[in-house]
Amino acid sequence: MPLLAAVPAAAQPSDDPVVLVIHGGAGSIVRAQMTPERETAARTALEAALRAGHGVLTEGRPALDAVLAAIELMEDDPTFNAGRGAVLAADGTARHDASVMEGATGRAGASAGTMHVRHPIRLARAVMEHSPHVLLTGEGAEEFAMTQGLELVPNEWFVTERRREELERVQRREREAQGEAGPRLEQMTGTVGAVALDQAGHLAAGTSTGGMTNKRWGRVGDSPIIGAATWADDATCGVSTTGHGEFFIRLAVAHDVHARVKYLGEPCAQAAQAVIHETLQAAGGTGGLIALDREGRVAMPFNTGGMYRGFITRSGAVTVRLYPDEDE
Amino acid sequence: MPLLAAVPAAAQPSDDPVVLVIHGGAGSIVRAQMTPERETAARTALEAALRAGHGVLTEGRPALDAVLAAIELMEDDPTFNAGRGAVLAADGTARHDASVMEGATGRAGASAGTMHVRHPIRLARAVMEHSPHVLLTGEGAEEFAMTQGLELVPNEWFVTERRREELERVQRREREAQGEAGPRLEQMTGTVGAVALDQAGHLAAGTSTGGMTNKRWGRVGDSPIIGAATWADDATCGVSTTGHGEFFIRLAVAHDVHARVKYLGEPCAQAAQAVIHETLQAAGGTGGLIALDREGRVAMPFNTGGMYRGFITRSGAVTVRLYPDEDE
Repeated sequence: MPLLAAVPAAAQPSDDPVVLVIHGGAGSIVRAQMTPERETAARTALEAALRAGHGVLTEGRPALDAVLAAIELMEDDPTFNAGRGAVLAADGTARHDASVMEGATGRAGASAGTMHVRHPIRLARAVMEHSPHVLLTGEGAEEFAMTQGLELVPNEWFVTERRREELERVQRREREAQGEAGPRLEQMTGTVGAVALDQAGHLAAGTSTGGMTNKRWGRVGDSPIIGAATWADDATCGVSTTGHGEFFIRLAVAHDVHARVKYLGEPCAQAAQAVIHETLQAAGGTGGLIALDREGRVAMPFNTGGMYRGFITRSGAVTVRLYPDEDE
Repeated sequence: MPLLAAVPAAAQPSDDPVVLVIHGGAGSIVRAQMTPERETAARTALEAALRAGHGVLTEGRPALDAVLAAIELMEDDPTFNAGRGAVLAADGTARHDASVMEGATGRAGASAGTMHVRHPIRLARAVMEHSPHVLLTGEGAEEFAMTQGLELVPNEWFVTERRREELERVQRREREAQGEAGPRLEQMTGTVGAVALDQAGHLAAGTSTGGMTNKRWGRVGDSPIIGAATWADDATCGVSTTGHGEFFIRLAVAHDVHARVKYLGEPCAQAAQAVIHETLQAAGGTGGLIALDREGRVAMPFNTGGMYRGFITRSGAVTVRLYPDEDE
């Protein structure tokens, strides 16, 4: 099976619908700056996440199980800005945000600012399933994680050499620039996410991130915000976003895709394209999203130099892409 | 000027548009359970907040200044669940959430879980105006507040005898009920908010709360979530919500009002009614919202026993209501 199937997004044959779509972050992914090793690592990791989620769906399990299977692998993989190997806050710690939503029930859960929960996406799900709340934060969220028996690890477990150097580089630039304190684009564009369609025809979506390098003041981006980063409604589509989170909050990007489908009657893929290439673009924001509807039609629009992304069909055909020119 | 003008919401004369609408929480406000003192206190406080914001608008200052003037008064007034006199978390502390959004620019700011910032709504505004972020949380948010010279007070300053007794009552009930740990409706339905229209024709909205009595695990409701509790777009409307926050997040209520206006072409008041009486109602959620458009047309729908609410017109005519049957 070819790693890069020549199947145009949003037009794959309806007898082999997409059942899982994932992203691993959007940003200035330029071929010239990628080593072959990093490129191979990214493609391999994306394909592994797709196959993990596909296995779950093939067993007839719910869409949310597949979302978790895919995201947990990406959280553990230092290639992506989530879980282990996530970017570091200004104080050198890793702080994670995550959210999930179910299309059949409209239930949702999220956590923000945790430092010890190995799989933040599992915490988001536990908040949805085992608390009366949608969003838990900080130490309180970790207390709740303990009551749920979730795996905890020392913060150090998440920290990789690459991210430590990245933080040092950013802080050195900041000191040199003095007053000019605006965070830079390349610091803000990592996240992982997944949207799945199960055999019962239900959608689920999830998003997980370490946020932004050198973040301060308990900054929370869009990843734990239902309606900004994550949305799922069986009647419209499932969405997970990645990019400069502040814009995604201010534009309620994930909910906006849903609203266009619901109120304008646009197909999910068309709504997804419009929100990224018209609304986000006009606002000056950068990033991308993945979207999937109940018919298994997928969209993966972005307005950055590249986006780690891929999907798998019911029959198991995998498509993985990094650069813009891989889309036909 | 009568305190209860006989002007139907959403149909006030266009030569005297509404320029400021506020709410002080929705819930089971039953006449039989209100003392005359509490009723008078609520009506007086709502009118004072409206007049404060009106004064700002009359001076030609921006809509956001009026939103802050109204909300700061309500934050300081123990009548409402925001700032001083807000409900208490499970550990007996007051923890505040707030958000603001500007209709002209789409800029937004929010803070969650602060314990020492006297006026959380000012912090939300400072996040919008003086940070590159939209949402700051916990101790980090307070660190940022210090850099902005915002007034800090001991947490004890916020705590009133009434709320301490309320927390004790809820915790006693919880112990008696044992396993049945679901939070009760009356614990969740307080918030303050405002939407203003300035002389330049721009909208702004803001929301502030202490959240839910006996909250745990760093629970954050909808109040600091742009798109859930707060939205403002000059092209559609400004919105602030109050109610059972988890539903407002899962339905992206504030953004949904905007989306109906933008994509369905509904008038703001009609969209506001539909979101509360159709979407929220169908989901089993409770609460209400205030909405205002650029023509000064107002809506204040809710599906609870009552909602503290009121508006003031350009000429200074005040309407204040608590119960459902005060609407014609």
